[in-house]
Amino acid sequence: MAAELTAHQLIEQHRPTLDQALEAIRTRAYWSPHPEHPKAYGENGSLDMAAGKAAFDALLGGRLDLGQPGTDDWVGGEVSPYGIELGVTYPHADVDTLLPAMRAGQRAWRDAGAEMRAVVCLEILKRISDRTHEFAHAVMHTSGQAFMMAFQAGGPHAQDRGLEAVAYAYVEQVRTPDNAEWTKPQGKRDPIALTKRFTPVPRGVALVIGCNTFPTWNGYPGLFASLATGNAVLVKPHPRAVLPLALTVQVAREVLAEAGFDPNLVALAAERAGEGIAKTLATRPEIRIIDYTGSTAFGDWLEANARQAQVYTEKAGVNTVLVESTDNYKGMLSNLAFSLSLYSGQMCTTPQNLLIPRDGIRTEEGPRSYDEVVADLAKSVGGLLGDDARANGLLGAIVNPDVKARLEAAAGLGEVALASREIANPEFPDAVVRTPVIVKLDAAKPDDQAAFMNECFGPVSFAVAVDSAADAVALLRRTIANKGAMTVGAYTTSEEVEEAVQEACLEECAQLSLNLTGGVYVNQTAAFSDFHGSGGNPAANAALCDGAFVANRFRVVEVRREA
Amino acid sequence: MAAELTAHQLIEQHRPTLDQALEAIRTRAYWSPHPEHPKAYGENGSLDMAAGKAAFDALLGGRLDLGQPGTDDWVGGEVSPYGIELGVTYPHADVDTLLPAMRAGQRAWRDAGAEMRAVVCLEILKRISDRTHEFAHAVMHTSGQAFMMAFQAGGPHAQDRGLEAVAYAYVEQVRTPDNAEWTKPQGKRDPIALTKRFTPVPRGVALVIGCNTFPTWNGYPGLFASLATGNAVLVKPHPRAVLPLALTVQVAREVLAEAGFDPNLVALAAERAGEGIAKTLATRPEIRIIDYTGSTAFGDWLEANARQAQVYTEKAGVNTVLVESTDNYKGMLSNLAFSLSLYSGQMCTTPQNLLIPRDGIRTEEGPRSYDEVVADLAKSVGGLLGDDARANGLLGAIVNPDVKARLEAAAGLGEVALASREIANPEFPDAVVRTPVIVKLDAAKPDDQAAFMNECFGPVSFAVAVDSAADAVALLRRTIANKGAMTVGAYTTSEEVEEAVQEACLEECAQLSLNLTGGVYVNQTAAFSDFHGSGGNPAANAALCDGAFVANRFRVVEVRREA
Repeated sequence: MAAELTAHQLIEQHRPTLDQALEAIRTRAYWSPHPEHPKAYGENGSLDMAAGKAAFDALLGGRLDLGQPGTDDWVGGEVSPYGIELGVTYPHADVDTLLPAMRAGQRAWRDAGAEMRAVVCLEILKRISDRTHEFAHAVMHTSGQAFMMAFQAGGPHAQDRGLEAVAYAYVEQVRTPDNAEWTKPQGKRDPIALTKRFTPVPRGVALVIGCNTFPTWNGYPGLFASLATGNAVLVKPHPRAVLPLALTVQVAREVLAEAGFDPNLVALAAERAGEGIAKTLATRPEIRIIDYTGSTAFGDWLEANARQAQVYTEKAGVNTVLVESTDNYKGMLSNLAFSLSLYSGQMCTTPQNLLIPRDGIRTEEGPRSYDEVVADLAKSVGGLLGDDARANGLLGAIVNPDVKARLEAAAGLGEVALASREIANPEFPDAVVRTPVIVKLDAAKPDDQAAFMNECFGPVSFAVAVDSAADAVALLRRTIANKGAMTVGAYTTSEEVEEAVQEACLEECAQLSLNLTGGVYVNQTAAFSDFHGSGGNPAANAALCDGAFVANRFRVVEVRREA
Repeated sequence: MAAELTAHQLIEQHRPTLDQALEAIRTRAYWSPHPEHPKAYGENGSLDMAAGKAAFDALLGGRLDLGQPGTDDWVGGEVSPYGIELGVTYPHADVDTLLPAMRAGQRAWRDAGAEMRAVVCLEILKRISDRTHEFAHAVMHTSGQAFMMAFQAGGPHAQDRGLEAVAYAYVEQVRTPDNAEWTKPQGKRDPIALTKRFTPVPRGVALVIGCNTFPTWNGYPGLFASLATGNAVLVKPHPRAVLPLALTVQVAREVLAEAGFDPNLVALAAERAGEGIAKTLATRPEIRIIDYTGSTAFGDWLEANARQAQVYTEKAGVNTVLVESTDNYKGMLSNLAFSLSLYSGQMCTTPQNLLIPRDGIRTEEGPRSYDEVVADLAKSVGGLLGDDARANGLLGAIVNPDVKARLEAAAGLGEVALASREIANPEFPDAVVRTPVIVKLDAAKPDDQAAFMNECFGPVSFAVAVDSAADAVALLRRTIANKGAMTVGAYTTSEEVEEAVQEACLEECAQLSLNLTGGVYVNQTAAFSDFHGSGGNPAANAALCDGAFVANRFRVVEVRREA
């Protein structure tokens, strides 16, 4: 079959973007080729707002036929956190047919080389980017994110993370040259000369196990890292968040076919309700790489049981913000209020424990007692979410009943400083929308420790009274070491405290944001510059994205002969 | 304490070498800063042959006091495969004292940064290089290698592999800049600006578990990769091969102290006979990285049980050479004869199974039957080892009684094409020196399969009759997939067969040497150019040396704040 997309075309079109990405991960300065503003779309083949919405609506109630081999059934059942039934059905795979079919195209994909794989991946990302408005609705109606967040985090930010992984994968593969001439002097005798050829070879089939809250953002790094290093990729979405990844698989298969490769290099593994195919797939001998985002329990299970695979996990953690002193009290409060409210705290990076000295903190306005700080923060969150329309735009919907139950139970854990409030969503009356709860706890009380030392995923924060800054740092260390952390924040004007917090983060391996008071939040990271997680504490065994994330997804085979 | 070695001095002295190493791993052309010839030593502070021998002799019967904390006893008991008792005793550590002491210096070592760590490692390697003659005797009298091999493989080649690991570790750490300014445009509003600081942080304490046959060559990559990435390193040598690694630890501690660092960043864990401390150490929470070379059984145990650590293993494999056709029959025979004889086949890279079509092979001298090929190879080995002095120089001594027992049992597995011969060593009358045995087996016979499909470590090769080249390639694939392989060799003049063997090696992930007839042997790899193992088949989960070998030994912690 003649390829519709030639290597020449793809390289000409995408190599400049790849080069910019390579430069960005080296300097870690700001860069993104994917516009964040909804109005930036609609030209050069991309869908504008109306066309994206129409494309999404056209998907509802239909069958997404990906043309996959071994399809033995059609499955679906997603219900949006906003209340609507998506009604989309997806191919259910006979794994014994699908997995061998996925391996058939691997040789050609391997032989295409690192650059061709990279530009094919960039073409996939380009087409996803063109459909960002459509993806935004798909992410919104599976994750419960508000539209703007679903648009940005599920669209350009996710595409950035995918491109970042492609860049790392590419540069890692070309660190070894394709060919080398090796000539060793032998004194007066003729030198010994060898010709060597080096080929990056894939591990096998990679499995991406998607999550409910960030199907694309958390799914793309592993998907593109594995594909760009020559592996076939099987995508097993979360049963409540199939559509965004199914559309991704659809685009990938289209591009692969047009570029002359086997579309089965990327496939979807949707499952029946309660089928639990992740365990079955994860231990298949064909599966050699697994990327997983989700609960600690299943992440630990994968690490212990999927021994035939390289396993990259992002699990639960307990994120801490230490509040010791500030020279911008209002800025601190509003920054924290936003962090606690965004997507109803349903981010793996949302702060949970706010450690505040029981004797209060210093501010540029004078001292504030523990109670005052908590009350002021509660007021700040209340103000931020006082307007229902704005609240809906920030909070999105509660993603599933477990989160709602956890939120309701949290009020019983201690004194409630800010009660959760129900917000009506006029557009989607069945959406469950809740403002965050803030509960006062005491680090000295064992019952309270039991509460705040576990992840309480959702719009729940604990204002934990601590004896001193030193105690707070010690608690921070314990929390990271025992529970892991995706993020750490700190507010302090004291050099000594700043130094102590930094040292704790360096030793316990956690990413630290210091004194954020403006438009950057502790729970947000930017591709090409910020690392998401560290890979060095219990919350995750990998960081997005670094050399370690890609280096072991392929191996290099050398063939040498006399020159 | 004022450092005797300043950063300036170390960088001035070693940065050019580091840069050359970085260039070499990029081009993979021939390069080494460590001379292979014994006569190259004796100037610029290095020990010449006599001084090296005297230094080694001075060690015998003495106590090697490394000044380690927590030393509760002195242990030893090495007996050279050449028959002499070394009589050296080493500190036995109370691990509960030693491990915490090893962590005390980690902060300063981390804060020194990647370049300083690299040049300190290069100073360690330089001092080891200066003592190459001394190390050669230490390696010879623990591994049983002949002097010249102990000198080269245990000296410059091991130092090359250590330096290669330092180069990979350095470049991996500096892929992320120390600092970044991140400025994100906000349309008409002021841009958001952050200052970010990135710090490579170590995993913790790394454990190197040494092997009997190549204590330095197999030990240095992990040791230097871990140290250069900021980890403390505890070296647990094989009880029969303590001295070369103990001397290495001694040098490392000296250099660290002189450079102003805590010498306890590198320490030795020698053990009492039968103590089996590797299991205890490997599962200690402080141990976060393990490098291991040895049996598959213990390697598998480590991978399954040392779950708190990154585990890099080189285990057993079954190496195959496919003999299908050649245009240099004599060159092939002499090349193979050398490969089978070197160090009595006690290399993880020595070919074991020679697959030869039962209908014979094509050569430039006309066809040769299976029986003729095997007889000619036997004759070639016999000729190579016909002179006892030359045989002693090539074979070295049998490293331990297990290898001797295996060699003796091998003769009972099939028709013996070449019997093993006992060789007297006039200098060391108690040395056990044996020539290799070649046994004829048949791929079609189940009993024979059971014999050749397991590693028979030592001077044992099987001439396996196969039905065809296609069958040989299929058997090669099965062998790599099920048993692993550190090396694969092939002799063929057929493009079709060459292509099939290459494809088997690419798909099963094994390093291939094609048609070697000169002075390079399938069992030898050169640092900076050849990969040792692939990390992609059961023989080893890592290759020496690549990005994957170093990338996960450290993590990067980011501290960001508003600019």
